[in-house]
Parts: sequence; structure tokens; C-alpha cells
Amino acid sequence: MDHLAHVSNQPNTQPQSQISHLALDIGGSLIKLVYFCRYDDSCRDDDELRSQNESLGSKSDNSRPVLGGKLHFAKFETSKINDCLEFIHSMKLHLGGFHDCTAPSSDKIFIKATGGGAYKFADLFKEKLSVSLDKEDEMECLVTGANFLLKAVHQEAFTYLDGQKEFAQIDPNDLYPYLLVNIGSGVSMIKVDGDGKFERVSGTSLGGGTFWGLGRLLTKCKNFDELLELSHQGNNRVIDMLVGDIYGGTDYAKIGLSATTIASSFGKAISDNKELVDYKPEDISRSLLRMISNNIGQISYLNALRFGLKRIFFAGFFIRGHAYTMDTISVAVNFWSKGEAEAMFLRHEGFLGALGAFMSYEKQCLDGLTVNKIPQRFPISVSSAGNKIYCSMNGKSNGNGNESIECTVYGT
Amino acid sequence: MDHLAHVSNQPNTQPQSQISHLALDIGGSLIKLVYFCRYDDSCRDDDELRSQNESLGSKSDNSRPVLGGKLHFAKFETSKINDCLEFIHSMKLHLGGFHDCTAPSSDKIFIKATGGGAYKFADLFKEKLSVSLDKEDEMECLVTGANFLLKAVHQEAFTYLDGQKEFAQIDPNDLYPYLLVNIGSGVSMIKVDGDGKFERVSGTSLGGGTFWGLGRLLTKCKNFDELLELSHQGNNRVIDMLVGDIYGGTDYAKIGLSATTIASSFGKAISDNKELVDYKPEDISRSLLRMISNNIGQISYLNALRFGLKRIFFAGFFIRGHAYTMDTISVAVNFWSKGEAEAMFLRHEGFLGALGAFMSYEKQCLDGLTVNKIPQRFPISVSSAGNKIYCSMNGKSNGNGNESIECTVYGT
Repeated sequence: MDHLAHVSNQPNTQPQSQISHLALDIGGSLIKLVYFCRYDDSCRDDDELRSQNESLGSKSDNSRPVLGGKLHFAKFETSKINDCLEFIHSMKLHLGGFHDCTAPSSDKIFIKATGGGAYKFADLFKEKLSVSLDKEDEMECLVTGANFLLKAVHQEAFTYLDGQKEFAQIDPNDLYPYLLVNIGSGVSMIKVDGDGKFERVSGTSLGGGTFWGLGRLLTKCKNFDELLELSHQGNNRVIDMLVGDIYGGTDYAKIGLSATTIASSFGKAISDNKELVDYKPEDISRSLLRMISNNIGQISYLNALRFGLKRIFFAGFFIRGHAYTMDTISVAVNFWSKGEAEAMFLRHEGFLGALGAFMSYEKQCLDGLTVNKIPQRFPISVSSAGNKIYCSMNGKSNGNGNESIECTVYGT
Repeated sequence: MDHLAHVSNQPNTQPQSQISHLALDIGGSLIKLVYFCRYDDSCRDDDELRSQNESLGSKSDNSRPVLGGKLHFAKFETSKINDCLEFIHSMKLHLGGFHDCTAPSSDKIFIKATGGGAYKFADLFKEKLSVSLDKEDEMECLVTGANFLLKAVHQEAFTYLDGQKEFAQIDPNDLYPYLLVNIGSGVSMIKVDGDGKFERVSGTSLGGGTFWGLGRLLTKCKNFDELLELSHQGNNRVIDMLVGDIYGGTDYAKIGLSATTIASSFGKAISDNKELVDYKPEDISRSLLRMISNNIGQISYLNALRFGLKRIFFAGFFIRGHAYTMDTISVAVNFWSKGEAEAMFLRHEGFLGALGAFMSYEKQCLDGLTVNKIPQRFPISVSSAGNKIYCSMNGKSNGNGNESIECTVYGT
């Protein structure tokens, strides 16, 4: 199986020394990386940014040069962690950590990392790259990442229904509370009440790992994206038992179930006339995707209801900007809530945890993090190792949901 | 594939003319039958019953003979409906219907039936057995059947946790409200507030049809019971991705997830080192069973919480008195509710709908249904075609959950 290529718009394939930070989110299926690279033309937009900072009363040290750059995103399968280590090494990304400020004489380098793999693979990183993983709590990173994206990045959140993508205007002053549903291998559901204020209220083990795990066993697909792609051409009615299949083609109108409602996922496969080879992988993929998306949508809604949350943001690498997945989740939330709750999605859905870990560099004896809203440009400053990073989204979407974010570094 | 044999303790394999009633519940996967047969020794317990009725001020017509008998239960796969039709024909069960009292001259026989198949197969019954199916609402029948069992049958409900089965004392005056979760091919969740007072509040398409459908595709099992049996020897940790698999063997204690918690059902199958043939069917079955049972338990709890219901009764032919299924559902309800809600099970779990249809004979221009509680003997009278049937549970359990119910017919 090919490893998943890193997905930033303008990947840096050449080693360079301009990496400021690297943060990792090592999950059960995927490793997500966020790292910052300067532009060669490092002074782009200097004047503009400086003038903005001055107008906001920024305490930035104006005597330092302002350097432009981008936050890059990359991912690898966790099972291919050696490819990831090689990538980090070849790009010298591991040098973008920090030194322990409580032991100034130490030359030990720390890299911010979250997810279970930060524990599981700590020794491997030590051995191969001579860096220590500084572990950040997974839920905290997800929330920090989500709050950052929702407050600072233009056109980050959107709704998706009936094939229509609509960007949402998020008022940072009216963001909380919301339910964050992160769909990785498994699913976490987090009630978010503010910066650093959250509770993991629920979850389900039927997540991306279930889709891909069952999908691998049932089809000949070689990777997740291939399986997802297949579902486009599939028809779930071949395998799912519909209300109409039980009722002889009619609705069960009395309780609001139409003939096309799925009564039993994979319920038609109980027939002994067909074996696995008789089903098309496309149809299997579609039924699986619908089963899992619908289930997540339903459990999410029930939890949102429990806490009176109107907005549910779905993130995690299961979604991958896939139209049918988002549509099914949206329909599930809409159906079960009778239109009371709304499903929303994030353009950088897969990198919440890694972004959160990236932003936690601010905690290392360094300046605080601030998010300042400027129309059409939403800079944040992540201060670390004496640098200040102002990120602003370039505002363009290439549709794959993993666009790099343009940033400007203020400092050295 | 063999058809599923009927399951009553003392099946009547010989044709006989003593059948009073037959009722059917034709679901997506299974056809459930309830029918009454007299004893040959038809006057057993006459005196005892008559004296009980007199002491209760029963309005029974004492001039009629009292006939003992049993309610029998049988099931067939819906795909093998012809076997079912043959069984009905050979037993002359189809003669146990009623005539349309609004058209006394008509010799048209009606059989009470519920489930989608009552619509789908109406023409087939007409053609093969010359009977009309008198359709009863599926949810109404489930509720009627559950209320009857819970009020009238001794030791019907029980809890199951850590391998311990404990019969519950149900006070008929303190039964409502409760959540009824019927797990057939799909799952219905019904809030029950009283006799005939109910609302289907939720459901999920991940039910028995999903377990058996996916199980058939993933294993070589030839029937549902074989697949269920296999799960006994299985180990779900081979295929499920546990929290410990992600966290390198440790808990994620901060949010209360132990190392053995399933993070992602089938999540380990994403590994490209193993194909379907490399997994044992036992392990696949166990993972499937756990995934579906746990999911149903979780969604049920969330719905019970929504309406403040403390008791959840799980029924339907998915369970089959299977220890691991009940244990997983109980653990899920206990885990998610933090001990606030309780999962309970029913001995006649699979026949709620059929029993409800059976009891609906009372509506056909006949006397009403009454449920009278007598210690250790809980008679009901289903009056139909001039007969009154008093049912009393024999109180003995053979462990398969489908015991016939001893009844006494008062009338001719």
C-alpha cells in the first residue's frame, strides 16, 4: 500500500533550515504534522502587517524583521511511521522544537505531540531523531485547534446539504457553547464552552477505523481514499434492507418512515443467495459509509440535545471533504433534530489536534497566544523561541480541505 | 441453509383441530408465530381456575367447560416463507382466525398479522391458504405484547450483568414509563406510557440484520445462531483497536478511558499485513456482536435520558438470551448512564409483536381483554370466537427464552 502523500498546497520537498516549529498528532490510523516554513521572499507584506499590529496596539518588537511563511500540513499512516520519521529527518523538521528552559544548559530538543502515539512512539522518536516528545492532552489540543480555526481563519466553517456548500459566518463572540465531534479511528464528542473549557461528553467506537477496517475486509481496496472514491458509484439499496423491502414497497407512514429509509444496514446480505463476491465493492462502500456517517450524526445530535447545543462541528480525517459523508451526517442531524440542530464542517478538519499541539508551544516559558480578528485577515501570534508568528489564511480553497495557511513570522 | 425450527417446549407436530388462534409477526428477517393449542387432557386445573375466577369476581360464563392448553411460539426465516406456509397448513393453524362479524354471511377467514410482511405477503397468504391478513400496527403490537408479558407473566423480566441473571419484580402499578427497545433486523425505540400509550422516539439501522448480514459476508457461517455461537470463543481484541493499542498499552485516564476500552471497532483491520482469511471467524463474530450491542445500548441510554426513563427493556430476536449480548448491552447502559439507568431483558423477547397481534383478536366484535394478577399464576383472558383464554406461565425456564405459556381456555 502506498503511503498517503502529504497534502499541503505547496509542499516543501527540499531540506531547509527555516523551519520554526513542528507539531505532531499521532492517532491510531494517521499521523498528522503541522510545520511552519518561511518564504524565501521572507519580507512579504511586512509593512502591511506592521501597520496592522500598530493599529491594534500590539506589543510586538518592531525592531525585529517580519518574515512571511506558511503553516504546512502533512499526514502519514501510523503503520508507516518510519516513512514519517524519514520525512521529518530529510526536512530537518525535528530541529523545529524547543529547548527545556528550566535546564538552559541542556541541549535536549522537545517536539510538541499529542494523540496516543505520543506515548506509544516516544522511544522511537528518541532513538531515530534524538528528540523528546512533549505530550499534550489530546482533547485539549482538539479544542485549541478548533477554537483557533473557528476564530482566526476566514471561511473555515461551512454547512453542506443537498450538495450545497455554504460558508458560515462565525461570530467569535457568539461561538460557545458548541459540540465538537472529532471523527478519527474512533469518535470523540466534546462540549466546548470556551478557550480551555471543555468536557468530553461522549464518543463512539464506530468511526473512521471501522469504515476502513471493515471496508478492507469486505473489498479489495488498497487504501482509505480508494474505498471512499468507490462509494461515489455505489448504491446502498443493494445491501441495506429498506423499510420498503419489509413493507412490500410501501412506507410505514404512521411513524414517519418512508419506503427508502434504511431499516437495517447490511440487512439484505442475510439472503443466502449471494456471497461476498456477488456484491460490488462500490455498493459495499456506500452502505458502510452511510451506516457509519448516519450513526455518528445520530449520536452527535442526541448529545447536542442533552446539553442544548445548537451547533455541531464535525472534524477529523474520516470526512476528507467527502460530499456524501457530509451530506449523510447533515441529513442525520437534520432528521433526528427535526431541523433544530445544524451540522457544520471545517476546512482543516483533519488537523485540529496537530494545530492544537502546535499552538501549545506558547506555554514553554514564552509569550502568550493572542487571536486578533482583522477583516479578511485573521492573524494570530504564536510566540516561541523568541519568534512571533502571525498567521493569516490566504482565503483560497482548492477544495481538498487541507490548504496550507499563509503566515507571517515576526522575529528572528 | 436449514430453516430455523420452531422453538416451543412441546411443539405440536401433529395436525389437530383444537387451534383457537394464530397470529403472525412478519419481519424483515424472521416470521414469528403465536398459536394456542388445547391439551388433550383439556380440563386440567378446572376447579382451581374456576375458584380463582370466582374469587376475583370474574364475569366468566361458568356454564362453559374450561379447557387447558398452551400458547406456542414458532419462528421461520422470512426468506423461507414457503416453509412457514406449509407448517401453518399442515397444522391447520390458518383455521384459527376469525370471520368478519360485519358480514356474517361471509366465510372469509382473517388472521391477525403485524410487521411489514403483513403487507408484503398478504397476497401470498390469500393464494396459498385462502386467508386474509388483518393488519395490526407493528409498534402497537410490540407495546401490547410487552405490557402483557411484563404484567401477566411471572419472572418475565430480568437483569443480566457479570454473568448473573436476576429476575426482576415488576409492580404492574409502577411499570410506566419505560423505554422498549426492540432489536429485530433494525431497532425501534419506543417510549411506553401506558396501555396503548406510546411513541416511537428513535431507532437505529444497526440491528440484528447488520450483525447477521455483515457476519455472513465476513465468515462462512450458515446461520445466525452459528455466528452467535462462534462469538463465545472469540476475542474482539484481535480486530478492535483498543485505547491501549493507540496509547502504547496505557489508559487515557484523564477522560476515563481504560486501555481495554474499544477506541475503534474493527480498527485493527486497517493493517495491511492481514487479509480477511487471516482472521478467525470467532474473533470477527465477537467484534461484530460487541460493536452492535454496545451501539444499541448507547443510543438507548441517550434516549432514555432524554425522557427521564430509568428502565429500559430490550427485546427482539437479536438477543436470543445470549449472555455476551446481554452483558454488553447492560455494560453499555451502565457505563453511559453512570449507573443511573438499568437494562432489562424479557424471556419471550422475540415474540412481542406476535403476542400483541394475538391479543388484538379481542378487538373483533368480542369481549375486552383483562389482565388479572394472581400470585404465581397470572391469567389473562383473551376472548374471541366465544372462547375465553386464561394464560398462566408455567414458571419454569428452560433457558432458551422461548418457553410456551400454559393457558386455560374457558368456553367452547
